[in-house]
Amino acid sequence: MPAGPDFAPDIERYEKELTRNVVPFWEAHGIDHEYGGYFDSLDRDGSVWDPDKWMWMQWRKVFMFATLTRSAYGEPRYLDHARQGFEFLTRHGKSGDGSYCFGLNRKGEPIVAPYSIYSEAFAAMGAAALYKATGEDACRAEADSAMANYLRRMANPKGQWDKSLPARPARLSHGVYMILANLGTVVKDCLQSADYEAQVAEAVDMVVHCFWNPERRILFENIDPDFSVDMESGDGRHINPGHGLESCWFILQYAERNQRPELVPVVADMIKGLLDFGWDREYGGIYYFMDALGRPKLELEWDMKLWWVHNEALVATLYAYRLTRDPVFLEWFRQIDAWSWEHFRDPEYGEWFGYLNRRGEPTHLLKGSKWKCFFHLPRCLIACIEQMKLCADEGQQGY
Amino acid sequence: MPAGPDFAPDIERYEKELTRNVVPFWEAHGIDHEYGGYFDSLDRDGSVWDPDKWMWMQWRKVFMFATLTRSAYGEPRYLDHARQGFEFLTRHGKSGDGSYCFGLNRKGEPIVAPYSIYSEAFAAMGAAALYKATGEDACRAEADSAMANYLRRMANPKGQWDKSLPARPARLSHGVYMILANLGTVVKDCLQSADYEAQVAEAVDMVVHCFWNPERRILFENIDPDFSVDMESGDGRHINPGHGLESCWFILQYAERNQRPELVPVVADMIKGLLDFGWDREYGGIYYFMDALGRPKLELEWDMKLWWVHNEALVATLYAYRLTRDPVFLEWFRQIDAWSWEHFRDPEYGEWFGYLNRRGEPTHLLKGSKWKCFFHLPRCLIACIEQMKLCADEGQQGY
Repeated sequence: MPAGPDFAPDIERYEKELTRNVVPFWEAHGIDHEYGGYFDSLDRDGSVWDPDKWMWMQWRKVFMFATLTRSAYGEPRYLDHARQGFEFLTRHGKSGDGSYCFGLNRKGEPIVAPYSIYSEAFAAMGAAALYKATGEDACRAEADSAMANYLRRMANPKGQWDKSLPARPARLSHGVYMILANLGTVVKDCLQSADYEAQVAEAVDMVVHCFWNPERRILFENIDPDFSVDMESGDGRHINPGHGLESCWFILQYAERNQRPELVPVVADMIKGLLDFGWDREYGGIYYFMDALGRPKLELEWDMKLWWVHNEALVATLYAYRLTRDPVFLEWFRQIDAWSWEHFRDPEYGEWFGYLNRRGEPTHLLKGSKWKCFFHLPRCLIACIEQMKLCADEGQQGY
Repeated sequence: MPAGPDFAPDIERYEKELTRNVVPFWEAHGIDHEYGGYFDSLDRDGSVWDPDKWMWMQWRKVFMFATLTRSAYGEPRYLDHARQGFEFLTRHGKSGDGSYCFGLNRKGEPIVAPYSIYSEAFAAMGAAALYKATGEDACRAEADSAMANYLRRMANPKGQWDKSLPARPARLSHGVYMILANLGTVVKDCLQSADYEAQVAEAVDMVVHCFWNPERRILFENIDPDFSVDMESGDGRHINPGHGLESCWFILQYAERNQRPELVPVVADMIKGLLDFGWDREYGGIYYFMDALGRPKLELEWDMKLWWVHNEALVATLYAYRLTRDPVFLEWFRQIDAWSWEHFRDPEYGEWFGYLNRRGEPTHLLKGSKWKCFFHLPRCLIACIEQMKLCADEGQQGY
């Protein structure tokens, strides 16, 4: 049998990116030592361009610093970074019903209502990761409380802010199930809890059997409450390849840890389908939004190239390569890796640009915002290193 | 004194564009003869890519067909187009409190709640224009009802869908005042009513004295309830040059019709400031969104070039030229006119593209959507023709 790929130079490159570029950037610029929590909106050089604090971003940083603490790259001070965020958010972030407000001002006063179910998701992940790092009961209680809120809100994620009327009930959103698939893995790993297994299994099955369409080989983002797809509507035809690829590696991870090997070939096909559909053959990179039938997109940014889409695609392709040893995934990984490192990295100020036009030129120089933070990129680097090391350890043996 | 500019070829070009390109496209593809109302989402060739009906777009088409009816380009059937829309919307579009739902399905069943105050604005304009064309009491009553709803909602435009919390009350939005400045002119003209004069005068003063910043020579979109600008926040620094330019010609029109000549030099300076700030000196065209201090924009589409921005800039520069005879406005008009006609027109299928990337290349081929319809372009063509004809009639005499 031929030798497997030599990932050693890649592992070194990814480790260096994590430890000498990405983590130092966020440590130097992203922590609010005066009021607690983190600065979210960082310009190219790390200066703060807006002081507000956004719940998704804040809890994601708790998660990331707590996760790093117990990684091979941990430093004792990372635990302090995570803990101060946890304290700031549990003190300031909650609304009356225990949901997390979407935004706080720098001091921690709530400025935006708790309209997003995903605030709960990232709170659960952050608190669970901190529990694993500290063993402290308060962290565990917070993770369970956030999980309970997430599960409670799933039936009506937008609550009072939902603008849908009875003639068109809100569609089921792939994101809600995809995130639960990931939450399940994180919470089970960190809390050693079996409390959520049934709901997580159901979420995985929803993605694979309802949102994925094997005939069209694309994953729909919005399906009707009866699980059908409204192909007449732009909203029904909406495709988000990066979201789909992220979902794929969450499910591969779930399959591996829960002895569900029958999921692997299905997800491998999903990854191939999404990349065949989503890769831009003219300029390279993966489109942000697409229409299943190639009709117009409403979103003005549909043809842009976003960092997180490519981060998630890197993890998905490596994960699929390790579990299937199908060389097409290694080829995709090489292609996405080359394009991403060439276009997204900021060689001058460190970290990665988030937003490129279709040609791959940066349209924004920011490093952090309401929607971009210390999360997809470091998580991708850690996950890719892990997959590459496992590939080497496992030799030619697939899953 | 030198002769004024010869607009005759431009007038001919604009008239031809209106009567042989834009109106025929929407007449041929944009009317739902089966269920009533209009198709909003039209692809490049006029085919329907989504059947839903969006209140802003629907009422704008009532307005446009009713306005065309009584123009020099009127045809009797335009009145039928407007009237059937009015009947569809008054039958299907209203919620319990008289506000207009934001969206209907093709049959007219409400699918999106009445969250936008601007639905009221376009209903008032559409119904008022139809009243002027028909003299029918039902149209007048509808216009007055929509105006009353608009004025009632101004204190809390987003109502129950507002996500702001007490530590950061919703900011005052330039759009709410700008639209009232235009509504005042349309409703006064069509209804011959003096009912709203005080509120309209106040809105004009708000734009000129609170949203416009003469030191920075930019117009802010979001100011705090105490009229200050939060320069620390991306939201406070948000600039929308096209919105500003649209506001400017609304106020010039208001100034001319209400004997407020002292407003003209201020607005002339606003137009110069907005164009100096908003014009892209590298690729041409006017940016969509900008930051007052050049910090990052949150919106991914900030550097795109939108058709309506350029339509409104054409009207604003011609209007300012006629009223001031300052040659800088004629130069701007020539420059924007050349760039717009070169980049936005679709020479193959007619009508104009709506969305170009920074370089001026179309990113979307659609002609209609939830946000683009038969409104800015035909209104611009009619208004520009009118201003050019008045320029010729008035000779060298400014306002």
